Amino acid sequence: MTMPMDLLQRLTGLVGSAGVVTNASDLEPYAVDWRKLFPGKPACVVRPTSTEQVAGIVQICRESGTAIVPQGGNTGLAGGAVPDPSGTQVVLSLNRMAAIRHVDPVGLTIEAEAGCILKVAQDAAAAAGRLLPISLAAEGSATIGGVVAANAGGVNVLRYGMTRSLVLGLEVVLPDGTVANGLRRLRKDNAGYDWKQLFIGSEGTLGIVTAAVLRLLPRPKHAATALLSVADPAAALRLLALAQDELGDQISAFELISATSMQLVARHAGLKAPIAEGEWFVLIEAASSLAGLREAAETMLGAAFEQGIALDGVIAESGAQAAQLWALREHVTESEAREGKSVKHDVSVPLTDVPRFLSEAGEALAAGAPGTRVNAFGHLGDGNIHYNVLVGADHDAGVVNRIVHDVVAAFGGSISAEHGIGQYRVGELARYRPSTEMELARTIKRALDPDNRLNPGKVLLP
Amino acid sequence: MTMPMDLLQRLTGLVGSAGVVTNASDLEPYAVDWRKLFPGKPACVVRPTSTEQVAGIVQICRESGTAIVPQGGNTGLAGGAVPDPSGTQVVLSLNRMAAIRHVDPVGLTIEAEAGCILKVAQDAAAAAGRLLPISLAAEGSATIGGVVAANAGGVNVLRYGMTRSLVLGLEVVLPDGTVANGLRRLRKDNAGYDWKQLFIGSEGTLGIVTAAVLRLLPRPKHAATALLSVADPAAALRLLALAQDELGDQISAFELISATSMQLVARHAGLKAPIAEGEWFVLIEAASSLAGLREAAETMLGAAFEQGIALDGVIAESGAQAAQLWALREHVTESEAREGKSVKHDVSVPLTDVPRFLSEAGEALAAGAPGTRVNAFGHLGDGNIHYNVLVGADHDAGVVNRIVHDVVAAFGGSISAEHGIGQYRVGELARYRPSTEMELARTIKRALDPDNRLNPGKVLLP
Repeated sequence: MTMPMDLLQRLTGLVGSAGVVTNASDLEPYAVDWRKLFPGKPACVVRPTSTEQVAGIVQICRESGTAIVPQGGNTGLAGGAVPDPSGTQVVLSLNRMAAIRHVDPVGLTIEAEAGCILKVAQDAAAAAGRLLPISLAAEGSATIGGVVAANAGGVNVLRYGMTRSLVLGLEVVLPDGTVANGLRRLRKDNAGYDWKQLFIGSEGTLGIVTAAVLRLLPRPKHAATALLSVADPAAALRLLALAQDELGDQISAFELISATSMQLVARHAGLKAPIAEGEWFVLIEAASSLAGLREAAETMLGAAFEQGIALDGVIAESGAQAAQLWALREHVTESEAREGKSVKHDVSVPLTDVPRFLSEAGEALAAGAPGTRVNAFGHLGDGNIHYNVLVGADHDAGVVNRIVHDVVAAFGGSISAEHGIGQYRVGELARYRPSTEMELARTIKRALDPDNRLNPGKVLLP
Repeated sequence: MTMPMDLLQRLTGLVGSAGVVTNASDLEPYAVDWRKLFPGKPACVVRPTSTEQVAGIVQICRESGTAIVPQGGNTGLAGGAVPDPSGTQVVLSLNRMAAIRHVDPVGLTIEAEAGCILKVAQDAAAAAGRLLPISLAAEGSATIGGVVAANAGGVNVLRYGMTRSLVLGLEVVLPDGTVANGLRRLRKDNAGYDWKQLFIGSEGTLGIVTAAVLRLLPRPKHAATALLSVADPAAALRLLALAQDELGDQISAFELISATSMQLVARHAGLKAPIAEGEWFVLIEAASSLAGLREAAETMLGAAFEQGIALDGVIAESGAQAAQLWALREHVTESEAREGKSVKHDVSVPLTDVPRFLSEAGEALAAGAPGTRVNAFGHLGDGNIHYNVLVGADHDAGVVNRIVHDVVAAFGGSISAEHGIGQYRVGELARYRPSTEMELARTIKRALDPDNRLNPGKVLLP
């Protein structure tokens, strides 16, 4: 234990012994991310039950010069919520602050504490007949605070935006221990700086999110799910244009799946697409309160065949069939893991450049890392591709990263479309983002956390 | 002229004599806001033609200790874009930087320079078959830069959000003269701090927006516009719930109009609602790519009658009829001005509290400012009411402000739902917003503009 006893005593005095974890085996789930890529060692874990306790913990740690790592469901993909291996950092877990405080089905708002599980909030919205549209694989464990701090994406971003666009109000404990309470349930508030934006997506490096007011939406009554095969990514883009024309903003997902991805899913999950084989597949989902959705989807499919855009395709006839189509997409990641080692990239480029990006990245890998195989899939409707590279034992992950991210940079793209930076991409961000922007980020960090006590080493290099 | 000759020479040297305005009559349109509430006196007006020139102007002014007031179309309602009366501040007008650089109808993005008129950008999107959904009364004069800097609202916020939710990329000249170029055409970018959020809605006090990438949307093919009368605001909320159920997120406007507003419009604009008189009116617009919209609107209207929510109502049978219904709403402000003097408020409260807010504010005014009349109308679907008070010669505007804003504060509302703070509400913001939030705002301002040279006195008191 490298933690001063005095600190432990003060923390225990504040939150009680049930709120402080020091036992090695109990610390384990807090110490490492779920992909086990970033093993850390916390000095201890503190689990407050109120915003006042969070503020008190920040104050105590500040006085002892201790770094704090805020943690929600610990489902992040970039190691942003786990401590370093020094044994000196305190993990502040929000998992005992999990209340849903308010659901307003007409005002379309929900207020929840940071530790509330995303799925619980989704269900509360559904029980009120409304939709909380943040939807992602980890929704059964991810928390509202983590989702806000990470500005989480997911499968509905195309229609509803990233988490940022759903945050109406925020309560944050600042690095100096003061509480900024902006938990307003207002759909419009243009009075002064919208400071909450700073904390959304800053991964706990500027403040600790303790509660949030999120926007809800009317719950669509009708859904249409279709799977189509196309010859190439350019045809997938033509299909997107067609879908935009016929379905407008009722498209909620437009997912690209490569033949490689489908083959992996067939091999390891035993699932097979119910349409003819193709080089690329597109999974489209649309949902609406209006009747006429099914008809519009059929019009789209007909036009896609007529114009030679789609090679084959099917519209789900039931919720069960729609779930079967989605299962193909949802099993890609897991099937990839069973296939072997891979180097993952969560990148975005301007949407209409996706076909050229895929072709240039493929060529660059064939030249610079021969023997690798590309497993590309993801949110084409957002220009966001999970460009994962299956590698052998001899391939150097750093080399693969460099090849892919260089092509991303050449297209003016982003090296993290939705997963954030954490510690995983902190060097890559510093490499690719222009120095003016990095300096602006450091100016913001210095202004709010001059002693670098909040989640140090994440997002920004020290 | 209180401006050092040296400064004028350097500015002229940078942008040419055509780019510097010093003649008193030419200065006039830049010196005062269009409501003529905030007459100022610029040292001069500089009109750069490039981002490099903007950066050069900032550098020159910095070296001479001169304050800069950025200005777009000068259509703001809070005096945020006009100089103070000292004759020492330089107005930096973006009106010669007006190019549309790019429209991508499938990637759904548009890139425009700051001085581009909003209407021109809307038309460019429409020519590509897409929709730029920012829509407001001043759209023929307001500029993209001003709209971004003010985080403008308008009639489509209910569906598409404030301007903030449509900004994908931003180029900003910082107070130190460096250029932060974040003009990425990405729909998803979660890499590091999203610093552009700081500049959206900060009214030119933190940086000068020189160009923006905005999100476009598919253009709906069908529209339905309805005007209904209801007994009271609570019934209007029940109608909103019904509209949410039947029309979902295809509702694009849900406007409340009081009988007083309708009477003013009848008296001064000669326009009359084509339905039976009532105490309150609701104008609903929905638009969709899907057929079935009209049917859903009729179902909603039928249910509203059946459940006794609507007293009378009509659905427009044509675009011309829809325009007639909208004309009623659009003539409220002008008719109010013809009626006489008024004290305006642009407030929001949690949506479901609007009925109680209206009743309590009315009672408070009757008690504290007898003889005033309330002209309430606005964006009920956003909880945003333009709560304007018709006053006589003897009424004190400050007293009326205090009464209304105290009630807003009691409901946890905002004293500026969409118009911003500028110089108009700077004292009110300081009064009503908690000191922790104001201190956080000052921390941000100090970090970016330590010498307070950028639009001083706006948003934050010195």
